[in-house]
Amino acid sequence: MSYSVAPLDKLIEEFASLPGIGRKSAQRMAFSVLDMSTDDAKEFAQAIIDAKENIRYCSVCQNLTDADKCSICNNDLRQKNIICVVEDAKAVMAVENTHEFSGRYHVLHGTISPMEGVGPDQIKIKELLARLDGSVEEVILATNPTVEGEATAMYISRLVKTLGVKATRLAYGIPVGGDLEYADQVTLSRALAGRNEL
Amino acid sequence: MSYSVAPLDKLIEEFASLPGIGRKSAQRMAFSVLDMSTDDAKEFAQAIIDAKENIRYCSVCQNLTDADKCSICNNDLRQKNIICVVEDAKAVMAVENTHEFSGRYHVLHGTISPMEGVGPDQIKIKELLARLDGSVEEVILATNPTVEGEATAMYISRLVKTLGVKATRLAYGIPVGGDLEYADQVTLSRALAGRNEL
Repeated sequence: MSYSVAPLDKLIEEFASLPGIGRKSAQRMAFSVLDMSTDDAKEFAQAIIDAKENIRYCSVCQNLTDADKCSICNNDLRQKNIICVVEDAKAVMAVENTHEFSGRYHVLHGTISPMEGVGPDQIKIKELLARLDGSVEEVILATNPTVEGEATAMYISRLVKTLGVKATRLAYGIPVGGDLEYADQVTLSRALAGRNEL
Repeated sequence: MSYSVAPLDKLIEEFASLPGIGRKSAQRMAFSVLDMSTDDAKEFAQAIIDAKENIRYCSVCQNLTDADKCSICNNDLRQKNIICVVEDAKAVMAVENTHEFSGRYHVLHGTISPMEGVGPDQIKIKELLARLDGSVEEVILATNPTVEGEATAMYISRLVKTLGVKATRLAYGIPVGGDLEYADQVTLSRALAGRNEL
């Protein structure tokens, strides 16, 4: 189904390439762009370019930031002796929303997954180990409760413990097979409070 | 819920302003933009600007086009003596997909709606009347079967008939594949009134 209007078909195709967006939704979105003012459409286009060009990884924790260090690493009120290790930036947000954690983060940007050819070197594990310089007392492994997340947590916990640092894991309470991004705040708070030493 | 990364929050906000897109979907979409290559992101941004800048209304039928006349008005194989009047460009596509109509279209870009302050002059009615120069024999009123769509069809049919042109309306009835049990009373009444001899 094509409108035979090249710029419109192209825009629909772009929206339809986004995750979870079908053809009908993409059409609705493209038409709403046509209904925008020219300024608003330009602002939208610029937001895409700005996000792509200006967002990088924090040099310390690998979280997303538009500066050298992210706002959490730059915040001196955050405890330096505890690091929460997560799979992605969405999980940082999920943990932040519990308001139960005042330490710092480390974003792995993935999990060890031999099936998909992702080994320990492809995710940000060495950057985490480099941070364990004696000031860090505990590493909370908050990877997702999936097979890959578990395996990654076990792998990292072993390395962390050889460096004399305590490694803990979020308590079950998070539904197995779920995703941190979609966990409700109470469940995630319980999981934080009930963390166990590995 | 904010990522405290200005360009990311801005992009999420832009996606969330699109129709039918909630906060979670907007986040997923924004992250997928971050995962795109820089070229793909630029192409996406350019598609928004191109669509906004290059799409205009066809000078004849008011359908969307990137030229002066749309591809249907430019197609000499389409009958000139029958015009299908619809509310918006999406309805043109819906009728085209039936492959049953070989005439031309006229897009009103709205319906008469006194409640929302939309009068006959705010939609493309005078442009339709200007096309009824004697070559047109029939105007099919294919506005939606809503209160506003009905009122608009009635209003236009009266004007069309004073110009000596036949005005017709899409048939009301039970949708194909539907179930009488679940048809609403008004639809069923219309279906009864519009019954055809077998």
